[in-house]
Amino acid sequence: MTGSSGKRLYVALIHHPVIDKNGETIASAVTNLDLHDIARASRTYGVKGYYVITPLKDQMVLVNRILGHWITGVGSTYNPNRQQALELVRVKATIAEMVSEIAEAEGLRPKTVATTARRHVGGLSYRRLREMLRVDGTPLVLAFGTAWGLSDTFMADADFILDPLTGAGTYNHLSVRSAVSIILDRVLGGEI
Amino acid sequence: MTGSSGKRLYVALIHHPVIDKNGETIASAVTNLDLHDIARASRTYGVKGYYVITPLKDQMVLVNRILGHWITGVGSTYNPNRQQALELVRVKATIAEMVSEIAEAEGLRPKTVATTARRHVGGLSYRRLREMLRVDGTPLVLAFGTAWGLSDTFMADADFILDPLTGAGTYNHLSVRSAVSIILDRVLGGEI
Repeated sequence: MTGSSGKRLYVALIHHPVIDKNGETIASAVTNLDLHDIARASRTYGVKGYYVITPLKDQMVLVNRILGHWITGVGSTYNPNRQQALELVRVKATIAEMVSEIAEAEGLRPKTVATTARRHVGGLSYRRLREMLRVDGTPLVLAFGTAWGLSDTFMADADFILDPLTGAGTYNHLSVRSAVSIILDRVLGGEI
Repeated sequence: MTGSSGKRLYVALIHHPVIDKNGETIASAVTNLDLHDIARASRTYGVKGYYVITPLKDQMVLVNRILGHWITGVGSTYNPNRQQALELVRVKATIAEMVSEIAEAEGLRPKTVATTARRHVGGLSYRRLREMLRVDGTPLVLAFGTAWGLSDTFMADADFILDPLTGAGTYNHLSVRSAVSIILDRVLGGEI
């Protein structure tokens, strides 16, 4: 089902704690296409699970309704490829709940890799992360922030901070859907 | 403004001719997030222009209304980053109109590079395309199909067919937003 490199890699899309335009910590709304695009990329690159983190009850209900449609409802026969992708999604209220669930499933507490558009001293390179996924047995969670990005508290608690993606110049405003896709290709994609 | 490699690369998102689930040629509907995500990725990687091809008059009107909001309307002051990205978008009714406009701007007729999830004999590798962008002066249009992909006629007329992206196994159902982002990173992104 999945390639060997991705077998201990999880993706987390964080809706809280993230920051808004003014730097305040908020809980952002879940976006339908974030579920689909990131699930499809996760399945394509052999990611083991895709966690959607939101503490908002109505958002959890919404996500589970969307998943139901595609996994067991009408969508499952209309488009089985979408079913296979969305089966990877798990919804949790907090990052701690996600970490516990992965620790239980893997028998090892996962390490978190935070992503950001800003460069940090001592950041993790793509090459190194790729290597860790190839040889290291520790489960890893690649965490992406919605809205204006992961909060400082989350960044401070993360085990690693991945180097930012860089493009052609100073403009660097990818959607989270694009960032997840590119990063999965960089760390799990075939040689080009 | 843009890096040197992308200075003659254009992205085209084709809504006709593409195929539906049953292989019939159709004109698909424009999706709001396709405009935003692909414009943001194009701007990040220094792509020269992002063409949205649709022969449907109401769709052209819709796209121009969205662009107006972000380029000169309320959105331009709310989020100037979005303005910078969406300024790359041009809407054309046909591929021929796009080719003419690029040929006029560049003084050279562009070559088209079709993308697909299926492997073709003699396909263009990412490494080769990257090299062409670095050394060759010919403008190139990287063409992406919406719905179930580019029509056979389009593929047959293209100058090149890019090798498909491959993930961890046989599952390969990326969104067009993901595919554009990954391919731009592969051919224009910094060394990793």
